Amino acid sequence: MPSRSGPAWLAVLLLCFLAADTARTQTRTSWLDPYRDNASRLMEAATADDFAWRRLAELSDTFGHRLSGSENLTRAIAWAMEAMRKDGLESVRAEQVMVPRWIRGTESAEIVEPARHAIAMLGLGGTIATPHGGIEADVLVVKSFEELRGRSDDAKGRIVLFNAPFTNYGDTVTYRTGGARAASQAGAVGVLVRAVGPVGFRTAHTGSVNYGADAPPIPAAAVSAEDANRIARLVAAGRHVRVRLSVDGHYEADAESANVVAEIRGRERPDEIVLLGGHIDSWDVGTGASDDGVGCIVTWEALRLMKQLGIRPRRTVRLVLWTNEENGLRGANAYAARYAASAASHVFALESDSGVFWPSTLGFTGGARATLLMRDIGSLVAPLGFREVFPGGGGADIGPIAQAGNVPSMAYVGDPAKYFEIHHTPADTVEHIAPQDVSRAAAAIAAIVYVVADMPERLPR
Amino acid sequence: MPSRSGPAWLAVLLLCFLAADTARTQTRTSWLDPYRDNASRLMEAATADDFAWRRLAELSDTFGHRLSGSENLTRAIAWAMEAMRKDGLESVRAEQVMVPRWIRGTESAEIVEPARHAIAMLGLGGTIATPHGGIEADVLVVKSFEELRGRSDDAKGRIVLFNAPFTNYGDTVTYRTGGARAASQAGAVGVLVRAVGPVGFRTAHTGSVNYGADAPPIPAAAVSAEDANRIARLVAAGRHVRVRLSVDGHYEADAESANVVAEIRGRERPDEIVLLGGHIDSWDVGTGASDDGVGCIVTWEALRLMKQLGIRPRRTVRLVLWTNEENGLRGANAYAARYAASAASHVFALESDSGVFWPSTLGFTGGARATLLMRDIGSLVAPLGFREVFPGGGGADIGPIAQAGNVPSMAYVGDPAKYFEIHHTPADTVEHIAPQDVSRAAAAIAAIVYVVADMPERLPR
Repeated sequence: MPSRSGPAWLAVLLLCFLAADTARTQTRTSWLDPYRDNASRLMEAATADDFAWRRLAELSDTFGHRLSGSENLTRAIAWAMEAMRKDGLESVRAEQVMVPRWIRGTESAEIVEPARHAIAMLGLGGTIATPHGGIEADVLVVKSFEELRGRSDDAKGRIVLFNAPFTNYGDTVTYRTGGARAASQAGAVGVLVRAVGPVGFRTAHTGSVNYGADAPPIPAAAVSAEDANRIARLVAAGRHVRVRLSVDGHYEADAESANVVAEIRGRERPDEIVLLGGHIDSWDVGTGASDDGVGCIVTWEALRLMKQLGIRPRRTVRLVLWTNEENGLRGANAYAARYAASAASHVFALESDSGVFWPSTLGFTGGARATLLMRDIGSLVAPLGFREVFPGGGGADIGPIAQAGNVPSMAYVGDPAKYFEIHHTPADTVEHIAPQDVSRAAAAIAAIVYVVADMPERLPR
Repeated sequence: MPSRSGPAWLAVLLLCFLAADTARTQTRTSWLDPYRDNASRLMEAATADDFAWRRLAELSDTFGHRLSGSENLTRAIAWAMEAMRKDGLESVRAEQVMVPRWIRGTESAEIVEPARHAIAMLGLGGTIATPHGGIEADVLVVKSFEELRGRSDDAKGRIVLFNAPFTNYGDTVTYRTGGARAASQAGAVGVLVRAVGPVGFRTAHTGSVNYGADAPPIPAAAVSAEDANRIARLVAAGRHVRVRLSVDGHYEADAESANVVAEIRGRERPDEIVLLGGHIDSWDVGTGASDDGVGCIVTWEALRLMKQLGIRPRRTVRLVLWTNEENGLRGANAYAARYAASAASHVFALESDSGVFWPSTLGFTGGARATLLMRDIGSLVAPLGFREVFPGGGGADIGPIAQAGNVPSMAYVGDPAKYFEIHHTPADTVEHIAPQDVSRAAAAIAAIVYVVADMPERLPR
């Protein structure tokens, strides 16, 4: 028989182990001691009120969506620069970028048979237009690329519906990006893709479609999960389902836009850059609050709070609100091109483009020693509720410069279960974002960026 | 100091009391004993599979919305009659009713200032049209009728937005029904009403608007909670908010429709009627699955299962799928007119028009003795998870005949928190309804209706 006192002994042993571990961790992170006070001040200031949420509301309420090439985006950029100057940020500037100008136009889809009924849909970003009046065809429902390959004879002249239930973004988005190409290769005249997100309230999710060079582009739209399932059930029941699709997407001439840049110049090593930001453009259906207004605001907050608290780190902290992340990545590429010569001077890059829904995580990509240091730095934000820094950071906008300069990169990642409910939908509004989630993200980012910008040794590659 | 054995004594006393109460209840409900077996068979058959959900899916998937006067409604009625005949129901018939034919037409709304942006909206059912191109006006935001009265000078020439957060349907729907009249009385040119429902995903809820005779009708639309709050925040921040509203609602000539009636003729007292049903029409934005396809299906199931199990109660069980509940109540009134002479022969009426979301409740309105008997009968469905029958039953469609005949009435009421999320929205689809909730509703209704139709004495008034 096991001794009844066994569990008690085990508990004592565990406590000793934990105490030793805590001591070891404290020893290991003693290098952080000079930064604890300012990091705490930044986190306290960030979480003291809902300033960041209100700024996000001002951005998303006033200008709404900020699709590349839209007047709303131009005005939002001007507003951001003015507000940054009022915050006292330095070297506030717009770095011009020409961006594509895709126009959604009027669009609709309906079930024609077995009975006329509107489909909840959104044309995919970049879709070509249908002929005036739309196209009408029988529907072929498939659940995967594999199923389509097996039934490619049935796809000719039809509208293919990819009805893949949402599992995670990475897996499911492949139908949105690649479905049109695969369907076109099989001879389809149009493609519908089940919205990439959990079942909402008849919610369609837009996003880019990628046409291949090896098949003619065909009109492409997202439909709500409910509509996709409805069509699938009708077909499974042996009903003849015919659909009309009308989309009007088209490109106009490239438009002027800009990356918004602002800095706090480093007090000792101004040429070493700690880069952070989000993207100021958005899709055209919601108000771009979560994707990615909030990413702009919470990174901007780091600089505003440093300025407010009189904290000037050793290195330059550079905020960039990139343009055209959603449908071109022109802003990110322009940034990398413009700063190619100083790519190696980028010490660290942080992107917030996955929302701030709690529980959020911090992900990091860098060398072994940088990862260890970043785990130490991450311990500073544990009081906010963050777990240890996860492996894997980066982002679409910091990607090009990070690749050019082999820059250690971090991602701030909100709870994907909530993020993808409203992602690329009309419901991407400030209403769905909690003020405390915005404040907490700003607090964590400010503390981490401050330490990386101020620590004596540059974060190793 | 209280005795430590106090709680134990209390528990013993409580157990004795409960045992006595159970015995008393068992004595009181012994009259039910002859019905327990058939009630159990009905409940078992109802919950044995997902037949009812699949029938609901067939109805809502195939025909979609069933707005009064639409071809979809006519086809759904024909489908229901055919299916009822196949089920072996008796006296299946369409009782003609002329219904209004309101057409939504094309509609939109947008914020014009401070920046152009689409508003998620639905014209209210019965709204008049705006002039071609819509109306454009500054917005006056109010939270209540009272606030509007205090600011009626500010309403002239404006579009009034009622931004009353959803509390419960009864309180909040008053703005949808009466907002246009109040705004018109104050000189407004149009009215927007915050959607009557919890915050969804930029979800607008339609439903009828009632114009008064004392003020000219003005265009009326529901807007999503997010849009209402956005406009309210902008106004509160001192921004000038201008909105364009374009609705195209209009009436065409009344159309032919019908109440669908089917029966199981009573074996002893065929002239005594136990009435039950839901409404076959719906609003034109979802597929009318919850409001009220499911009410039709779960009441229909009671008759189908009796037929299947060879149960023929003493009295006639009459199923009615009423037409035009949503925007006219012509079906309910036609039924009451047609059966005026036999109103007093209606023994009981049950309506299911509040969804079947779990937890559901049963509500009853009747005299003291009927209430006591109904509480007994309700104990039969306790194994399904139902609590005691609540006070307060009835429904819009059974209302006129119940009033004419002073008929004891019951309502099947699904969880309102879930029901009103999709009520009158595009998301009213079968996707949002769980098969087990449909089966359970059918089971409870079948058991209760069977007992009321078969018990020796007629349920007293």
